[in-house]
Amino acid sequence: MAPPTVADLTSPSSWAMVEDKFSPYAKETLTKLIAFMHEEILPAMKLAHVQLPTDPEKRWKTVIPIIEELKVKARQLGLWNLFLSKAHYPEHGVPLTNLEYAVMAEILGRGGHLAPQVVNCSAPDTGNMEVLARYGNPEQQRKWLIPLLNGEIRSSFAMTERFVASSDATNIRTSIRQEGNEIVINGHKWWISGAGDPRTRVHLVMGKSDPNNTSTYSQQSVVIVPADAPGVKIVRPMQVLGYDDAPEGHCEIIYDNVRVPLSNLVWDWGKGFEIIQGRLGPGRIHHCMRSIGAAQAALDLMIQRVTDPSRKTFGKYLYEHGSVIADIAKCRAEIESSRLLVLSAANQIDKFRAKGALKEIGIAKFVVPSMACRVVDTAMQAFGAEGLSQDQPLAQVFAQLRTLRLADGPDAVHIHQIGRTELKRASQLSKTTAEIKKKENALLEKHGVKAHL
Amino acid sequence: MAPPTVADLTSPSSWAMVEDKFSPYAKETLTKLIAFMHEEILPAMKLAHVQLPTDPEKRWKTVIPIIEELKVKARQLGLWNLFLSKAHYPEHGVPLTNLEYAVMAEILGRGGHLAPQVVNCSAPDTGNMEVLARYGNPEQQRKWLIPLLNGEIRSSFAMTERFVASSDATNIRTSIRQEGNEIVINGHKWWISGAGDPRTRVHLVMGKSDPNNTSTYSQQSVVIVPADAPGVKIVRPMQVLGYDDAPEGHCEIIYDNVRVPLSNLVWDWGKGFEIIQGRLGPGRIHHCMRSIGAAQAALDLMIQRVTDPSRKTFGKYLYEHGSVIADIAKCRAEIESSRLLVLSAANQIDKFRAKGALKEIGIAKFVVPSMACRVVDTAMQAFGAEGLSQDQPLAQVFAQLRTLRLADGPDAVHIHQIGRTELKRASQLSKTTAEIKKKENALLEKHGVKAHL
Amino acid sequence: MAPPTVADLTSPSSWAMVEDKFSPYAKETLTKLIAFMHEEILPAMKLAHVQLPTDPEKRWKTVIPIIEELKVKARQLGLWNLFLSKAHYPEHGVPLTNLEYAVMAEILGRGGHLAPQVVNCSAPDTGNMEVLARYGNPEQQRKWLIPLLNGEIRSSFAMTERFVASSDATNIRTSIRQEGNEIVINGHKWWISGAGDPRTRVHLVMGKSDPNNTSTYSQQSVVIVPADAPGVKIVRPMQVLGYDDAPEGHCEIIYDNVRVPLSNLVWDWGKGFEIIQGRLGPGRIHHCMRSIGAAQAALDLMIQRVTDPSRKTFGKYLYEHGSVIADIAKCRAEIESSRLLVLSAANQIDKFRAKGALKEIGIAKFVVPSMACRVVDTAMQAFGAEGLSQDQPLAQVFAQLRTLRLADGPDAVHIHQIGRTELKRASQLSKTTAEIKKKENALLEKHGVKAHL
Amino acid sequence: MAPPTVADLTSPSSWAMVEDKFSPYAKETLTKLIAFMHEEILPAMKLAHVQLPTDPEKRWKTVIPIIEELKVKARQLGLWNLFLSKAHYPEHGVPLTNLEYAVMAEILGRGGHLAPQVVNCSAPDTGNMEVLARYGNPEQQRKWLIPLLNGEIRSSFAMTERFVASSDATNIRTSIRQEGNEIVINGHKWWISGAGDPRTRVHLVMGKSDPNNTSTYSQQSVVIVPADAPGVKIVRPMQVLGYDDAPEGHCEIIYDNVRVPLSNLVWDWGKGFEIIQGRLGPGRIHHCMRSIGAAQAALDLMIQRVTDPSRKTFGKYLYEHGSVIADIAKCRAEIESSRLLVLSAANQIDKFRAKGALKEIGIAKFVVPSMACRVVDTAMQAFGAEGLSQDQPLAQVFAQLRTLRLADGPDAVHIHQIGRTELKRASQLSKTTAEIKKKENALLEKHGVKAHL
Repeated sequence: MAPPTVADLTSPSSWAMVEDKFSPYAKETLTKLIAFMHEEILPAMKLAHVQLPTDPEKRWKTVIPIIEELKVKARQLGLWNLFLSKAHYPEHGVPLTNLEYAVMAEILGRGGHLAPQVVNCSAPDTGNMEVLARYGNPEQQRKWLIPLLNGEIRSSFAMTERFVASSDATNIRTSIRQEGNEIVINGHKWWISGAGDPRTRVHLVMGKSDPNNTSTYSQQSVVIVPADAPGVKIVRPMQVLGYDDAPEGHCEIIYDNVRVPLSNLVWDWGKGFEIIQGRLGPGRIHHCMRSIGAAQAALDLMIQRVTDPSRKTFGKYLYEHGSVIADIAKCRAEIESSRLLVLSAANQIDKFRAKGALKEIGIAKFVVPSMACRVVDTAMQAFGAEGLSQDQPLAQVFAQLRTLRLADGPDAVHIHQIGRTELKRASQLSKTTAEIKKKENALLEKHGVKAHL
Repeated sequence: MAPPTVADLTSPSSWAMVEDKFSPYAKETLTKLIAFMHEEILPAMKLAHVQLPTDPEKRWKTVIPIIEELKVKARQLGLWNLFLSKAHYPEHGVPLTNLEYAVMAEILGRGGHLAPQVVNCSAPDTGNMEVLARYGNPEQQRKWLIPLLNGEIRSSFAMTERFVASSDATNIRTSIRQEGNEIVINGHKWWISGAGDPRTRVHLVMGKSDPNNTSTYSQQSVVIVPADAPGVKIVRPMQVLGYDDAPEGHCEIIYDNVRVPLSNLVWDWGKGFEIIQGRLGPGRIHHCMRSIGAAQAALDLMIQRVTDPSRKTFGKYLYEHGSVIADIAKCRAEIESSRLLVLSAANQIDKFRAKGALKEIGIAKFVVPSMACRVVDTAMQAFGAEGLSQDQPLAQVFAQLRTLRLADGPDAVHIHQIGRTELKRASQLSKTTAEIKKKENALLEKHGVKAHL
Repeated sequence: MAPPTVADLTSPSSWAMVEDKFSPYAKETLTKLIAFMHEEILPAMKLAHVQLPTDPEKRWKTVIPIIEELKVKARQLGLWNLFLSKAHYPEHGVPLTNLEYAVMAEILGRGGHLAPQVVNCSAPDTGNMEVLARYGNPEQQRKWLIPLLNGEIRSSFAMTERFVASSDATNIRTSIRQEGNEIVINGHKWWISGAGDPRTRVHLVMGKSDPNNTSTYSQQSVVIVPADAPGVKIVRPMQVLGYDDAPEGHCEIIYDNVRVPLSNLVWDWGKGFEIIQGRLGPGRIHHCMRSIGAAQAALDLMIQRVTDPSRKTFGKYLYEHGSVIADIAKCRAEIESSRLLVLSAANQIDKFRAKGALKEIGIAKFVVPSMACRVVDTAMQAFGAEGLSQDQPLAQVFAQLRTLRLADGPDAVHIHQIGRTELKRASQLSKTTAEIKKKENALLEKHGVKAHL
Repeated sequence: MAPPTVADLTSPSSWAMVEDKFSPYAKETLTKLIAFMHEEILPAMKLAHVQLPTDPEKRWKTVIPIIEELKVKARQLGLWNLFLSKAHYPEHGVPLTNLEYAVMAEILGRGGHLAPQVVNCSAPDTGNMEVLARYGNPEQQRKWLIPLLNGEIRSSFAMTERFVASSDATNIRTSIRQEGNEIVINGHKWWISGAGDPRTRVHLVMGKSDPNNTSTYSQQSVVIVPADAPGVKIVRPMQVLGYDDAPEGHCEIIYDNVRVPLSNLVWDWGKGFEIIQGRLGPGRIHHCMRSIGAAQAALDLMIQRVTDPSRKTFGKYLYEHGSVIADIAKCRAEIESSRLLVLSAANQIDKFRAKGALKEIGIAKFVVPSMACRVVDTAMQAFGAEGLSQDQPLAQVFAQLRTLRLADGPDAVHIHQIGRTELKRASQLSKTTAEIKKKENALLEKHGVKAHL
């Protein structure tokens, strides 16, 4: 049987909206990706799970063999680094737009942690590659970017700090200071994704190099720290709703007098804030599209469950009970409208770069993760207790999606930001209204009607 | 000051998604429409309101002068019958796609009952013109379609019945029977929109011509009834949340032994059900886009109110209180995602006709009106009691939008329909799952892992 | 057939919660009230509607005969002024607690505008009687309170101002100043409920008597203004979602150099703010309980509709479609939990006066009206278009309930207030937590465990 | 510092509603319980966590020492078996009503898995003790009930089956058949709570003894199975959102030709369905009240977090951002109304036994767990990523509450049940309506008004 089409996996109408924006190369790549997902990646998910030891020590020291095998195949097929748009990264990028990759990211989102890794498109590596491609000097690129682009190593971005509300970057306490030809780093971070992985060789660490700078957004710098540098102490993995996400994990790390050469500074002193800003735009869209893929996959699972004859109760299919059919319709509508929202944001990035798409990215960022959580929660409910367990992918997917309501700033921050941006339209709206009012009054007067107050 | 752009009135990103699907003619027409809205239609709304008498009798006998004036101007500008796509109605249509008109319908939706009338795009005339253009014979077209296309007369569609759950067409009781060269109609209808208007000259009446036909969908026929035929008795206007929507109104009508010539039968005996099916697709999209325009206009009003310095309380702007900013952001996101949903459905109609876009139309039908009700309700709340009153357009808009959750079938019917359609994907999904499972088991076996149950 | 019991009309379990708090007198009164509702008030609602002329002038000059007839009967039965608790108003009150009256208010809430009037418990008279009973001097009480208590006249409370955000009392612009032995009032009010009623003889007017007082809450005073005083100009009735609520109405009023004797000052100069504060507590609970009665009545209507065999579609009862059954269950649960919330607030007022029940009153105030709107909206949806029309009570009830989300401050104000009050618990909570933490650490140490950070 | 009062921990107004229904003994016990919670149980929660090994094998073989210590203290204080009401279980019960215990259960709900165990009130033991107290013969009571009442052993109830939709008891496949003097059990169960605990000595197993009985509710029987009987095979622990809830756990179990003496039959053949029905009423209320305690504790945590000065961002407290204050107010209101709902259901059980409180129990069952999930989710969001981690109790509490939306039947089942029950009111409502209509028509006629259709 042929693999499903993109219209099957997403929706005919969303595909009809964007199809004519796809290059022939992008269409071909998408077709290959779908086939590869169904022939190689999805069938390998259970094996990958089995190849991860349950032993609390060993699971953090494992490179899962099947993933490495699939990476080789994927690269041979040209399914590699799809996230890096040539338009924005001419040297290292692939000839795909953000919109084109967005559709692929949704497909990848059906494959949990595994699929993005296999095609070298998994966070936090993607954002780190963007940073190094944009701001890294040739030596940094040779040493860290190329192996990352080759999928030979992995990386972390160390931003969030323990004991501090670090979503406000001015609260950051990690100290980055120059001592002669070296940079000395001291800080206490946590939720550092990927830091548990034995393949992770490098951390990009954000800290304060100039804490007294009156410009609060020039106090921060970013430094490249090899994962095995003396003083890098991984304290423990954090859990997310009971999951440790080994081997990558989300680690608590103490940087205790870590010393790196001065050449490990990224871009320049005081550029930390600008670096993280640039890092977030497209990455948020990728997260969103993967979330939509996860939600769509959950809905697909739910549809199979509620039509399963062996699940009948009281002589009826599950879908004949209560509001299951309505739930499915609403999930379908929510997925579809969210998908269009994100595709539209990706298109906006292509046309106006991330800076010109802030509103669209922000809306997607607060709409999609909570939508996806609701859909997956609905699907879990349809599966009964099994839906919450290790026997279905739903619970772990839910946990991942739940973190996205907090990662890169909680929903409320993005909602507030969008609200503020909307308010800026007030002045233009008032002018237009005043003009209409003026014409209205002239017209009323002409017809001998006394204008109302 | 120049009128706003389409990107201002809708959103930059939705426009960016569809712009390259617009013909030069459509772009030009859209620009003209926006200018006309801001220079003529919106400034005339209050006058139109004043020109409608408050006297309970006279308000039903009035042709509002300013509307007729504007109709002349609109037609001269080529802003006329924009809803009738040449692609589907080659003889009478205009060279616009459904997608192109959808964007225009949103703009019209900012102008209440007035704007659609001015450009001869108002329900129920639009659906009736579609019926007559598709199914009317040349004589019927000459007599009724041409004057409708010219905006000289208006029309009603008489479907809903009192005392009967007529959303199930098999429950319809109105009798349509042949007697010699005549058709005799007896029935009790209500909620017949437009029937109060002095310009309304014709009713398309749905009834049962063959109530015993074993095919329940061949029992109905549609007949053309002149509004002044003996036996057509308008009982009373129905109110919607306190509004009578004069002069059009939504009337209770008794057809008491009404006789029309046999030639007034539309299409053929037993075609009633098929006729109403064909009538509903694009019309639902038009309603949806107008609703989105109404919601966007309500949000724009709200933004102006909450930034109005004269509305400060306790030293703060309204937007600084409670969750106003969050409300605005959420409204903005809901409008945007709904808009994309409807544009995508319109695009689907263009590509696959209404029959190939049933799912998209159905989703839009249940998502948009309740979304728009929520947005307008939120805006009303921001205006305080004034928001509920005759001093703001919001309350009447709310009432209109609220009826759309029932018109052409209540939300629940469409939700159910979409849910059922989704369930049909089960068989294909199960096949794909089985194939992946097979590969998964082969892979597990190859690696010596016993497949889990 | 005997009238329903209180447990039928509310719920067995809510009645079981409060029954033992009812005095024998209250039980007897409640039983009489229920019988009177079913035998006299509910059967009279249509007649009262018919007795109100549709003529736009006459409807404001009508005293509806059946209401006056029923008032006589109600008073004879002792069903009179039930809202005025003897415990708080020893001189004029009736021997009922707020909790006891709350249950009766729910019963009255099933009878629209009519029922509360019939038993002389309708707003804004109730609040005005409370003000005059608490703060009026003997002469004021003789002249205005006694006729109000006797149901001979009606009254208004003039607080809300046009062009001003008057929910912040410091924004009030109406001027109240002493000139010799007179008080001169100038101001522009609107939404003055009851002011249209020909029986309304007196307005309590709130304005600023000392606008420069540094204590912003001592700037206001309340003055008694006879409705027929020269300079009292009723501009127009405001509409609420299309309803004018004649003959009471919600009027725009200009007080243009209105002069009253100095003896018409209520309580004392600068007491305006304190007077309105005292006016609001129990009144809010009454509104809430009536809203719950309205919601329960709407649910009861809905249950009858969805089980009506004549409403079957596609061979099924309405309740067999979609999520109707689930909707009913959720409405039932929402009504029940809201009812308990309000009963508990009423009980709190009885135990600790309104000041000691601010949190409970505030929660009820923001929970109940939106709950009741949702329930009535759900019921309207079940009735189809008829639910929105003049043929069912639902639409007008919806409009009334919708205003309650704004009256006495919009929901958001009460939500914010309760949130702030909750935050005040922080200090006590932190102390308790610190104490537990201390014991925890001692215990861990005793067991040789190093306490976590 | 004195421990908080019950009004502090729940709410003053809910306590005011029930206080006069409390016996002096119940008040005294409640006071002791609160003190014990704050002085002993809450400070011991971390130690209990530490005393549970992380080793995947050992954690299932551990009896946590501090729990056993606290059990001794609790029993000495008379804080023991509080759930078993003397009114319903005269021989073994304690002199507390369900309402009195409900308030205590909320307090216990602040102490996770630990607190209920310490006072011997933890599921599934509670339900099993009820079964054995009601249906067990003296010998069964001596052997199993007494040790359970003494807290010496623990127990499981084996109902849910793998591969089967066992929420419909007629789908159960486990076979229970008599062979001579023995009963032979074969079946495949999962989600058997408590079965992992080394203290669990007995399973009550539900299966089919008479699968061909035409009365589908007489096919089932319940049998007592010692946990160490040959053939009882614990396959694995199920996980809930990543948690294994060791050492109790929720286990998959195969009963493989397990043989027990005939005397292990509970009550009689074919009584299985009746036994589980009786088991569920009060237990559901206990779950609900503990959930409310958990939700209240989460809100209390959230209040402390958002007022914590060290969490300020951008110069503001967390509570000053976005809609935090509104969230807190809404959580507070939801908790309070749910609490009253459950207290009212408990009161109903006391007055009319579980059978007379089915509607109240059902409403609580579907309202409370989802409410508590929302509140805890809101609190998690306020804590950022930390809220999802092992450093706060919220995530694990969320997982437990999430299962309650499925345990004893998913929400939808209870919603449907309540909806159906509500529909039964239709006939009585219609009669009342008809009677009012009759009086209405008579009144209209008397006043010469033609009754409307």
